[in-house]
Amino acid sequence: MNKIYNPEPASWSTILERPTKTIDDIEATVKEIFREVQKKGDTAVAKYTSLFDGVAVANIEVYKAEIEEAIATISPELKDAIQLAKSNIEKFHAAQKTNIVSVETVEGVNCWQEKRPIQKIGLYIPGGTAPLFSTVLMLAVPAKIAGCNEVVLCSPPDKNGKINPAILYAACLCGVTKILKVGGIQAIAGLTFGTEIIPKVYKIFGPGNQFVTVAKQLATQFGVAIDMPAGPSELLVVADDTAVPAFVASDLLSQAEHGTDSQVILVSTSKKLIDAVEKQIQLQLEILPRKNIAEKAIANSKLIFVENDTIALELINEYGPEHFIICSEFDDFYSNGVQNAGSVFIGNYTPESAGDYASGTNHTLPTNGYAKNYSGVNLDSFTKAMTFQKISKQGILNIGKAIEIMAEAEGLQAHKNAVTLRLKAIENEK
Amino acid sequence: MNKIYNPEPASWSTILERPTKTIDDIEATVKEIFREVQKKGDTAVAKYTSLFDGVAVANIEVYKAEIEEAIATISPELKDAIQLAKSNIEKFHAAQKTNIVSVETVEGVNCWQEKRPIQKIGLYIPGGTAPLFSTVLMLAVPAKIAGCNEVVLCSPPDKNGKINPAILYAACLCGVTKILKVGGIQAIAGLTFGTEIIPKVYKIFGPGNQFVTVAKQLATQFGVAIDMPAGPSELLVVADDTAVPAFVASDLLSQAEHGTDSQVILVSTSKKLIDAVEKQIQLQLEILPRKNIAEKAIANSKLIFVENDTIALELINEYGPEHFIICSEFDDFYSNGVQNAGSVFIGNYTPESAGDYASGTNHTLPTNGYAKNYSGVNLDSFTKAMTFQKISKQGILNIGKAIEIMAEAEGLQAHKNAVTLRLKAIENEK
Repeated sequence: MNKIYNPEPASWSTILERPTKTIDDIEATVKEIFREVQKKGDTAVAKYTSLFDGVAVANIEVYKAEIEEAIATISPELKDAIQLAKSNIEKFHAAQKTNIVSVETVEGVNCWQEKRPIQKIGLYIPGGTAPLFSTVLMLAVPAKIAGCNEVVLCSPPDKNGKINPAILYAACLCGVTKILKVGGIQAIAGLTFGTEIIPKVYKIFGPGNQFVTVAKQLATQFGVAIDMPAGPSELLVVADDTAVPAFVASDLLSQAEHGTDSQVILVSTSKKLIDAVEKQIQLQLEILPRKNIAEKAIANSKLIFVENDTIALELINEYGPEHFIICSEFDDFYSNGVQNAGSVFIGNYTPESAGDYASGTNHTLPTNGYAKNYSGVNLDSFTKAMTFQKISKQGILNIGKAIEIMAEAEGLQAHKNAVTLRLKAIENEK
Repeated sequence: MNKIYNPEPASWSTILERPTKTIDDIEATVKEIFREVQKKGDTAVAKYTSLFDGVAVANIEVYKAEIEEAIATISPELKDAIQLAKSNIEKFHAAQKTNIVSVETVEGVNCWQEKRPIQKIGLYIPGGTAPLFSTVLMLAVPAKIAGCNEVVLCSPPDKNGKINPAILYAACLCGVTKILKVGGIQAIAGLTFGTEIIPKVYKIFGPGNQFVTVAKQLATQFGVAIDMPAGPSELLVVADDTAVPAFVASDLLSQAEHGTDSQVILVSTSKKLIDAVEKQIQLQLEILPRKNIAEKAIANSKLIFVENDTIALELINEYGPEHFIICSEFDDFYSNGVQNAGSVFIGNYTPESAGDYASGTNHTLPTNGYAKNYSGVNLDSFTKAMTFQKISKQGILNIGKAIEIMAEAEGLQAHKNAVTLRLKAIENEK
């Protein structure tokens, strides 16, 4: 752990620097697989599933019988937990629905904005050691509320050609319309171009390793939208002497166990708190199953002491953390003043885990400083805002002249003419 | 003009295909200029302004005296027109403000979503023959309503080192905080990295030629967000015998005059209407100042006859037009059924020009089929949605068990531990 006292503002950007990834080597591989899937479809997909996942899957689509079989293996406790989480995520995202915004800007000029669902979406859920069924909830629940027609879930098969039962259960519970055993670059390529089995979609959501991340970036060059650019997960905690050191340590460690490149930062106006948290981290780290991972992330973590809360807030806004926990006497000061953060957790009894799983907020959040310019996934991520207008004769009489003058000043005579013809027609009716 | 009768659905994607651009040659140039601006800052910017715009600008920042001088040259009629447009854009975008969404998902678990402004944004306004002051209104007005702190406008200087007066007037009227005489790739690079004079921003908005488009794409690789991917402008009109052929022709031509690559499509259930519009286009084309441009776009245009409105709607949704005009007896059928369109114009007295300039809707819209997965620019484009949560002891008692079970099932023990510690602490208080 790196303890830093009163860093100069000029040094903040260096202290808060995120690791930069080199993606150049990966890019060539990703492009090659995209080309092949575009050309050869399912044959290419099967080839790379065999190569990367080490398994030949006869039929990549998961049917009802397989889902039912899988669900039977899940404990009632886990089912209940998933259902509670789903219910909360549903409540919070359903509340994000917006009404039609309708305005008569001048008499006879009616303008409105409506949000309509993105019709076809793809959800990518990684396989491997940690089966992220929670991410299924975070993506499929709002997709359903938004009204997306086709929700295609792709997840890599394990060595036995199976997808984790909890992923299947969550997908089934949340109304995913198609589940496919396909992962990695070939899954993203399939969703981008479509194959006989994999539907082409308009937007791809979900986390993944660096290959999936680069594949999603490449997909955008073929007209597909993605949820957001990805980077390692991060947590910044601001805490003072009202915080409980053991709680703060446990939150920092829950971030650290995600990966060796996880970003973990504590900012405090209390040196005493910093020392106490440091001790607690050492204690708690010892008993973690993912100690090896967490230890490396913690070694790169930063414990930063600053003189006062104003400086702390400035530093936090410069960083723009994905997750931001506030355990401070002045929690209102921070929650009102934070400009750049993905999700904010307030108080000693609000661990990041709550938002990761079950409180109702979404856990797909902007990392890598993208909290400055991107929203986390929310209901609107599954819709697009469209505008409509209907103008009456009186309406075009009211704004027609202004349009003619502006179009002419921009040198666009045909734009002007479209109005002039209509104004003349109205004139001739008189 | 290409008249197509009853095309088979299997042929739609070919008929509706947009031209693909090759950007490979441009990309090397853009990367080179980015590297140089990142390294040498304003010196590099000045070099490329001199090279591309053919002018040496001593001071690229526009100050008050120059703005006032420029404003004095604008006619009162144009000022009035701009003010009317601004007022309508303001009304429509202010109505898009959303309240805080706050939900207690279970007792003691309070979650809310708040939109906060993107603090620093850049607006790119092209120079050249058509001074797009209307785009200044479309971007700066919602930026102001959203509460963006820094709004930096870049526009290339003309041969005399000036920016068009109407652009300066609109910028001044809408609260742009800094105006810079810099255009092209060097402007986008400057906004991406920041120089001594050009501020680094978090998101870049605005149209541009293919160099600017590629530069904006490259900017996203350096953490900057952009409004949306760009492509040639497009209009699809659906019309039947209730439409006025001269009006429809004028709308198609107003699209065609944008550029030789503009996409112009008419879909109709009436052969009579198609023939009448074709004649009107020929008549009106003759007298246009930008006839050369419009003629080329019209030569590639498509007039498509289909048997009924259901087929028409399916075809339109497959295309996903940027602008969609409905002049049909069944306008409700189309406006309710359209899933993919940037902005929809309903009725004989609602020309696309109205939305381009003065009705109040935004004219920065998704082209190239992006209406399937992107919103046009709206108030939310200038904000990011952040979530907050505050959980009481009772709250964590209510959801803690579910979090523990889910975290354990995902193999994330430290996530579980952050909850377990808190539950134990509450237990011990009893």
